[in-house]
Amino acid sequence: MNFMLKDENAIYYECGYSCDNALYLRLGKEAFFITDSRYTIDAQEHVRGAQVVIERDLYTKAAQILKKAKVKKVIFDPKEWSVAGFEVLISKTKVHFKPEPDFSHKKRIIKRDEELQIIAKAAKLGAKAFKAFAKEIGKEGFGKDEFALTYMAKGALSGYGKYDISFDPIVAINGNAAKPHATPTKKRLKEGDLLLVDAGLKYKRYCSDRTRTVFAEKGFVFKSKQTFGKKKIQKAYDTVLKAHDNAIAKARSGMKAKEVDALTRDLIEKAGFGKYYVHSTGHGVGLDIHEMPYIASKSETVIEDSMVFTIEPGIYIPGEFGIRIEDMVAMVDGRAKVL
Amino acid sequence: MNFMLKDENAIYYECGYSCDNALYLRLGKEAFFITDSRYTIDAQEHVRGAQVVIERDLYTKAAQILKKAKVKKVIFDPKEWSVAGFEVLISKTKVHFKPEPDFSHKKRIIKRDEELQIIAKAAKLGAKAFKAFAKEIGKEGFGKDEFALTYMAKGALSGYGKYDISFDPIVAINGNAAKPHATPTKKRLKEGDLLLVDAGLKYKRYCSDRTRTVFAEKGFVFKSKQTFGKKKIQKAYDTVLKAHDNAIAKARSGMKAKEVDALTRDLIEKAGFGKYYVHSTGHGVGLDIHEMPYIASKSETVIEDSMVFTIEPGIYIPGEFGIRIEDMVAMVDGRAKVL
Repeated sequence: MNFMLKDENAIYYECGYSCDNALYLRLGKEAFFITDSRYTIDAQEHVRGAQVVIERDLYTKAAQILKKAKVKKVIFDPKEWSVAGFEVLISKTKVHFKPEPDFSHKKRIIKRDEELQIIAKAAKLGAKAFKAFAKEIGKEGFGKDEFALTYMAKGALSGYGKYDISFDPIVAINGNAAKPHATPTKKRLKEGDLLLVDAGLKYKRYCSDRTRTVFAEKGFVFKSKQTFGKKKIQKAYDTVLKAHDNAIAKARSGMKAKEVDALTRDLIEKAGFGKYYVHSTGHGVGLDIHEMPYIASKSETVIEDSMVFTIEPGIYIPGEFGIRIEDMVAMVDGRAKVL
Repeated sequence: MNFMLKDENAIYYECGYSCDNALYLRLGKEAFFITDSRYTIDAQEHVRGAQVVIERDLYTKAAQILKKAKVKKVIFDPKEWSVAGFEVLISKTKVHFKPEPDFSHKKRIIKRDEELQIIAKAAKLGAKAFKAFAKEIGKEGFGKDEFALTYMAKGALSGYGKYDISFDPIVAINGNAAKPHATPTKKRLKEGDLLLVDAGLKYKRYCSDRTRTVFAEKGFVFKSKQTFGKKKIQKAYDTVLKAHDNAIAKARSGMKAKEVDALTRDLIEKAGFGKYYVHSTGHGVGLDIHEMPYIASKSETVIEDSMVFTIEPGIYIPGEFGIRIEDMVAMVDGRAKVL
């Protein structure tokens, strides 16, 4: 099989190294990692199973290699390639480029044992970071705004510089938590607020992802049992937690992703919050923070052992509050194991 | 003129708002900002001079609008568009899409007064962050490794959470500074080391960019006069500083960018360091950290008033040390004014 990759994580998956300007060609048994001279030393040291080629214009070089190899058909993912780069290949070769959306993501949906170990470690470090963050908030977080709290979260997640983070953490108070993709505001945290934190870090390039919603009071921790002052919030919280626990307890290899989605959705709908559950149950996690499988109400994907994904039901009441509880699970021996 | 944009900053420039999933169409006097429902509220509040359209599939919606408007020709930048997205437009319309590389960057090369003010403020905040970072290093930076120092730099640059940063800061000691795009190592800072810091922040989405190289001792500041223990380093440093100052003093509107480049390059070559000056003199700065004009040895671009770019000559001796001094300038009344 011949294929070509442009996405940084897709390339890393094939050869154990990547950078922000690289192109990967697999032509039968041969493979080529093309990058520019800034990355010569690192590429030569880390790329496995591919020839390192240094060239300023990656696309023209790729066209040369394709012509020389006389290949007829090459698979590519049209989401990964810019019109400009692809145009160079089209104009300089007579290869039949076969579009295959999500080509690399499909390859990566079942995790190898080594990947499962790395992801489990990432998840552990992520959980540890939440503990550290709670402690810091208890010490000096009350009175600070969401910008400052987000900055604080980044510190804890990164191990104060040791790790990259998987995405800009969401740290949202009360009404702002009602936006699933909340960005920071100048709202300040006070005791008795609802606080939602959605955050992750990267360990050996693999992502962690975790969300907790808490009743913020001095000395709080990010545990799943939470007691809120208001009944409506408590009911929503307990519903989300039940939906979350239900999906983790009952997800099985062999189910369709939409059946797993129903394990959270049905409970939330029955509790009367259906229209406030505005997203899917979860998504795969690996080198990318969002990858396959997608645990969505229309997904026919069959869940299998060694898939890794999130379970993250939520209820969002505009202007009032938002609740989400998220864990990563790996499918092991037919069941969901929380990482 | 009709054009379409996909790049986040290109879109922001047209309508004062953008997000990570948007598509912008300008069709004669009409304009459309298409995004998904996550951004409805923000888009409706902030988009200027364009109709906000909410739709899950941006490309199909754009095709519908193009068909309805019966336009014949639309300009686009092929670097901005994925093959997958562009394919939707090609297959669903009969429009002639005219590729124009760097379409938005070309529009943005001359800064408006309002932009100049914002960029000047970004540069000032950037300089202030360098001061704060030097102070922090003096207090607790010696003995820390480049990962921890980079984390510290991010703190100072972001105003501890108030600002985004323009790019991952480079904080490199001695030999590691010889890589123009150095990434952190476990090398620890000790007194008497050479320390290179290249960093910037964003103010109202516009970037700052600044580099200083210093002899690190207790109480150091990021000033341009520096005294190093070793003669070779001192000679290289003084050469870079002279080249930097020469370009700022002699750059004029009306010159070609390659002539400005020569103002740093000739001096460094004459001092015998030519082969260690491995990059261009500078690059434009604005919404993107790298934009037009490029101050490079082959660039025929004519420098004009209200352009903003960096002057950042460097000397890199592999395995030994690297030196770079970088400031942002705006062309004002024919001359380069340091921001």
